[in-house]
Amino acid sequence: MSEESPRVSEILARFIADLRDDELPDEVRHAARRSLLNFFATALAGAGDVAVETATATLAEFAGKGEASLIGRPERVDPLTAAFLNAAAGNVHDFDDTHLRTVIHPTAPVAPVLLALAERQRVDGRTFLDALALGIETACRIGNAVSPEHYARGWHITATCGVFGAAMAAGKVLGLDARRLVWALGGAASQASGLVETLGFMAKSVGVGAAARGGLLAALLAERGMDGPARPLEGVRGFLSVTGEAPRRGEVTDGLGVRWETLANIHKPYPCGIVLNAVIDGCLEHVGRRTKPIDAIASITLYGHPLLRQRADRPDVMTGREAQVSAQHAVAACLVFGTAGLDQFSDAAVGDPRVLDLRRRVRVESVDGVPVPDVRIVIVEQDGATDEIAVKDARGTDGRPLTDAEIEDKFRSLAARAPACRRAEELIEAVWTLDRCADVGAIMALARGGEGG
Amino acid sequence: MSEESPRVSEILARFIADLRDDELPDEVRHAARRSLLNFFATALAGAGDVAVETATATLAEFAGKGEASLIGRPERVDPLTAAFLNAAAGNVHDFDDTHLRTVIHPTAPVAPVLLALAERQRVDGRTFLDALALGIETACRIGNAVSPEHYARGWHITATCGVFGAAMAAGKVLGLDARRLVWALGGAASQASGLVETLGFMAKSVGVGAAARGGLLAALLAERGMDGPARPLEGVRGFLSVTGEAPRRGEVTDGLGVRWETLANIHKPYPCGIVLNAVIDGCLEHVGRRTKPIDAIASITLYGHPLLRQRADRPDVMTGREAQVSAQHAVAACLVFGTAGLDQFSDAAVGDPRVLDLRRRVRVESVDGVPVPDVRIVIVEQDGATDEIAVKDARGTDGRPLTDAEIEDKFRSLAARAPACRRAEELIEAVWTLDRCADVGAIMALARGGEGG
Repeated sequence: MSEESPRVSEILARFIADLRDDELPDEVRHAARRSLLNFFATALAGAGDVAVETATATLAEFAGKGEASLIGRPERVDPLTAAFLNAAAGNVHDFDDTHLRTVIHPTAPVAPVLLALAERQRVDGRTFLDALALGIETACRIGNAVSPEHYARGWHITATCGVFGAAMAAGKVLGLDARRLVWALGGAASQASGLVETLGFMAKSVGVGAAARGGLLAALLAERGMDGPARPLEGVRGFLSVTGEAPRRGEVTDGLGVRWETLANIHKPYPCGIVLNAVIDGCLEHVGRRTKPIDAIASITLYGHPLLRQRADRPDVMTGREAQVSAQHAVAACLVFGTAGLDQFSDAAVGDPRVLDLRRRVRVESVDGVPVPDVRIVIVEQDGATDEIAVKDARGTDGRPLTDAEIEDKFRSLAARAPACRRAEELIEAVWTLDRCADVGAIMALARGGEGG
Repeated sequence: MSEESPRVSEILARFIADLRDDELPDEVRHAARRSLLNFFATALAGAGDVAVETATATLAEFAGKGEASLIGRPERVDPLTAAFLNAAAGNVHDFDDTHLRTVIHPTAPVAPVLLALAERQRVDGRTFLDALALGIETACRIGNAVSPEHYARGWHITATCGVFGAAMAAGKVLGLDARRLVWALGGAASQASGLVETLGFMAKSVGVGAAARGGLLAALLAERGMDGPARPLEGVRGFLSVTGEAPRRGEVTDGLGVRWETLANIHKPYPCGIVLNAVIDGCLEHVGRRTKPIDAIASITLYGHPLLRQRADRPDVMTGREAQVSAQHAVAACLVFGTAGLDQFSDAAVGDPRVLDLRRRVRVESVDGVPVPDVRIVIVEQDGATDEIAVKDARGTDGRPLTDAEIEDKFRSLAARAPACRRAEELIEAVWTLDRCADVGAIMALARGGEGG
């Protein structure tokens, strides 16, 4: 930024207000489709989680009129409540899309807001995808401006920055002008919250749900004239200064429309820390050719980048949540069950005696010079036989993003966990062809549970 | 705190869960009654403010079933929405009670939550007052632990700490045990937000409203089992560390039940900065004996503590909001209109030619040794006559808190601005006798607007 005091909020708002349909690059629009399909997948799987069940039961008493659908659930609620609950469902397993630089899961707070609006008023597919991309872009760029200090201090960045993404996405669909979008950023700033301390507890979902709901509310309030400060982001007592240490305001606005953070979103193949992707890839490869019983294994040694050991050398985890960052558990569960889905990172899987037994034989070694997305795995049998697997560019990392077909497979596997969702194939097709959809709200009939699903 | 790692959240929760009705000191209960009456007054006056109008119009579409009343308004909404809107109304003019050490307005986010619950389930007056005092106490103590750095950094402390007060007050009425109260603190921590950047704009009310709503939601979620971290306040990534600089955790728990921050709450006699209280007291004294026309005045000089000049020497303010901290405006408006209420600090009053003319003749002088709550005012007429007024211990400061009768008068004056409130005297009586009330929800019939008011 060359200006001494750039009006970051205004520049961002103007960009969002002015972006025309034909100005969003095709690859960005496709990235938005991929994130949406991945979001539907994780929300279908999350819809039955106890945090989402509890929040739904609590909010049902207070929900207003309105025909907004819940993904994978039969209830109909008002759009604000739907935004809260669908965001909570999409993010509850941390299996939704991830912007690696900030660790934001950007789609969970944004997509539900747009889906709720699309059931309130007609929204066509291109407008929807533009708004989704702009919402993701907003959250990630604001996140970039305060990272990594913001998360390190204890802000749950998916929620704190997600509220701005939700507000801008909603504002785009509502057709707010730049002045009102700045007000919506102010209303969002008033509600920006979420603490890392809550991770691993249901309270996390309160923050993520509130981000979606708060962003939608901020846009709806701004539409009616609820005003806010001129510099909600960059003001002296604005979001960037208050929640960042030395915020780089230019990250919000530099290269807007040219460089898209939305393209840097990755999709996880496995419901665990990304540092374990290569380990699981390798274990699944071994499983594919293994003939001996599991208890014939004498030892398994992982040779990886030092980060693997720092982050994931955790032989004694107790819960599914902790298991998400345990190399020992990941290896053992993968070999015992032959797959690595949500069930393999549950409390039950952690307590399985076969997993407990096998994980004791797993060691993690640091090797300088091994790239982060790679790993070498050496499996020694009690009879002395050895299998060695070298994984390069694990699935779901920057060098080897999930293909569209792989995201579809992930969707099918997660949708199968939501028994009410019987129209999974139609929903996949609807997302891929969303550009040609005249009424996005109609596709919620494919995603909701109960008689409509 | 002698312990190395005190469990602040747990100690606070245990205190709140265990406090028996007969353990709340009478003076604390009376302080709660005073804060409640003052809150009804400011909410009645705020109910018609454009921020509250706009938020009500926006939320009406989404509000659920439920018979919760809005103070000074005819709409009935669900309890969560009522908590939001009544909190916004109570605080919109910053004329509600003030905890001077932290600048928290503690009752606005707390009382509306209890009033909404009292219309949902039977709550007797003593339980209500206990919960109100505990909510105020919670907000102010958490505020103490992070003050003054928290506000200085840019956190709107009424909202950020208010959400905890709201959660604990609601949790007390719901009868949550200590474990669930800790969960409610976690749910509140997930929603703790509010920025100083938004002050002076309607977006401020979004933060305050969200604090009340969020606190109530956190308690309702905890009641149903929505869990949270064990140390939402004092954890490494908990509220105190994340939003404070060097938080003093002991402030939350030291002397709980012995020293009551609730007693340190003051009530403003005038809708402006407290540093101007003495100035207005003196001007009103002069008005009482003045016989000449206002344009006979040659000069008015204020001799006060240096803080008066630092904070309030602002001859050229443009808006009602700015006028709240302008000594020149305060003096001029007071002399022109003969009173100092909300109308005298409106945009219209700031633009009044008589006020603009007179304020040019007002000077502020610093005098070392004059106590903050005192001032000496010298008014010189064009004919050379002089009036000198010495004010000691201004009304509404620590040394001379408003009497109960003065709070009643403030209530009457503000209630008169809400034309729908025709039962003001009954409401005053109901608040003073709340201990004997079997069903607090019933008194909302006296406060709401429309046919019930």
